[in-house]
Amino acid sequence: MKKHYAIGIDIGGTSLRAALVSDEGAIVKKVKLPSSDGITESLLKCVGELMTGDVAGVGFGVAGVIDRETGVVIESPNLPAIEGLQITETVRDRFGVPVFLENDANVAALGEKWLGEGKKLRSFVLISLGTGIGGSVVYDGSLMNIPAEIGHMSIVANGEKCSCGNYGCLELYASARAMLAYAIAAMESGSASVLKDCCTGNLYKLTPEDIYRIALDGDTLAREVLKEAGRYLGVGISNIIHLFSPDAVILSGGLTGAWNIYIQEAIREASRRTFKRLFDSVKILPSSLGDNAGILGSSFLVFNA
Amino acid sequence: MKKHYAIGIDIGGTSLRAALVSDEGAIVKKVKLPSSDGITESLLKCVGELMTGDVAGVGFGVAGVIDRETGVVIESPNLPAIEGLQITETVRDRFGVPVFLENDANVAALGEKWLGEGKKLRSFVLISLGTGIGGSVVYDGSLMNIPAEIGHMSIVANGEKCSCGNYGCLELYASARAMLAYAIAAMESGSASVLKDCCTGNLYKLTPEDIYRIALDGDTLAREVLKEAGRYLGVGISNIIHLFSPDAVILSGGLTGAWNIYIQEAIREASRRTFKRLFDSVKILPSSLGDNAGILGSSFLVFNA
Repeated sequence: MKKHYAIGIDIGGTSLRAALVSDEGAIVKKVKLPSSDGITESLLKCVGELMTGDVAGVGFGVAGVIDRETGVVIESPNLPAIEGLQITETVRDRFGVPVFLENDANVAALGEKWLGEGKKLRSFVLISLGTGIGGSVVYDGSLMNIPAEIGHMSIVANGEKCSCGNYGCLELYASARAMLAYAIAAMESGSASVLKDCCTGNLYKLTPEDIYRIALDGDTLAREVLKEAGRYLGVGISNIIHLFSPDAVILSGGLTGAWNIYIQEAIREASRRTFKRLFDSVKILPSSLGDNAGILGSSFLVFNA
Repeated sequence: MKKHYAIGIDIGGTSLRAALVSDEGAIVKKVKLPSSDGITESLLKCVGELMTGDVAGVGFGVAGVIDRETGVVIESPNLPAIEGLQITETVRDRFGVPVFLENDANVAALGEKWLGEGKKLRSFVLISLGTGIGGSVVYDGSLMNIPAEIGHMSIVANGEKCSCGNYGCLELYASARAMLAYAIAAMESGSASVLKDCCTGNLYKLTPEDIYRIALDGDTLAREVLKEAGRYLGVGISNIIHLFSPDAVILSGGLTGAWNIYIQEAIREASRRTFKRLFDSVKILPSSLGDNAGILGSSFLVFNA
């Protein structure tokens, strides 16, 4: 008998999000755990909570370079604890259902293609904006089998060293982590900002959500932090348009919540830098699935297998 | 009756090279003219010299963004004189044969795919190294219909302004023009070098060939100039591998003549920067067609039509 549900899991730099999803794309139940604790245990716990007899399989998306054949994460600069783990095998052995592994940006792109903005598009590049920055490319109607490591494209050749070993990577300048680093450096060197009050003196507890909320209240430093990250994101988007000229660049991930300042600045910077003809022919859009693109796309791995 | 010859033309930043080519890829006759004079006249002259009754058509490759439907070059930062010209129509009207237009890096990639290194590969990225830097991507056995403007990928976000309008473009740091700029700036600020003697005091007559020849004789400045451009080229190659992870990166164009210093340095830099797993699975090769990749690929446009 055909089974009509899948468990989709999105493993990011700070959290592990999972859902029971129907084959029509409805989210029936959701679970969220921190990814900083034991990954394998968290994963098994999530799957256990969501498992039913009508589940056809488990799909998951992970930030990093993955090996589809062995089901192992080869390299994950933002989540080194997951590198080399036999997570596919572990979940399959415990629950006796098929398990699929993909890069997190790829599953977000599959989600968009299945249920979101991507349904109508022949080509798009999805950029996932969070702790790190990931990418995925749909070309001529299909997901390309390429790493699309947009976050580890160097945009400041002689810049800071990244945890991946490269220098000046986009995600050092445009991600959530970059925003926090800008804000902390500015406050440590004496800049005044309401940001100082929001984390009871411990700057390291600041979150991108704090920065955006305070920026919307008009705080100068918070606004400048978002704009600085946005300008660098614009450099990355411009590079992507010069290379791929897709029908659309779809932005997904938690940081798209800061659209009005961070993303608007990125679009402005990209427009300033990109061949006019190429810029005029691309749409820059937020993911219409929001936070759910990853869990939906991970479920699609199961339905599409 | 089937015609067995085509005229292939490669229009670069400094010269216009054309050849009569057989459908088996043999070059029968070659012509070279500067591209700095009237483009249309040079083009008509080349075609006139090579035309025979057995020519099935004319193909040409041009540095820049082209519109395949109208046969017009939309944007060509290194050869602005060609922008907007109806060259396809002009040549067709004069000679009464089909005429095809493509980006210069795309025709070089088609040449490689037809007769060179690319014959055996499912995916490769061709990078053409000359006055500017162009790119082309073969994926899953076919040329991708994307601009692949690798030379206008920003690798120094806050760097120099490029003639294209962007800032810090790869070709400002890694092309032939970049080498000349490094050498001239160093000598103008007093660096000693044999380079000074080779152009009878006029530094602006220096060529990349001069720099390479003198570098091979052990001149410190000439070697450093090639290595500096090579290091930035390595940043660009690393970005391309992080995005596409192709089976090979094929380097074509005049500058590959400086392989032992410039390209070796680029490979060293790319290896230092790239995810190990991705770097280990890519070959970095010179075009096996050398200078002829462009004219052969342009002819292939005709045979493949």
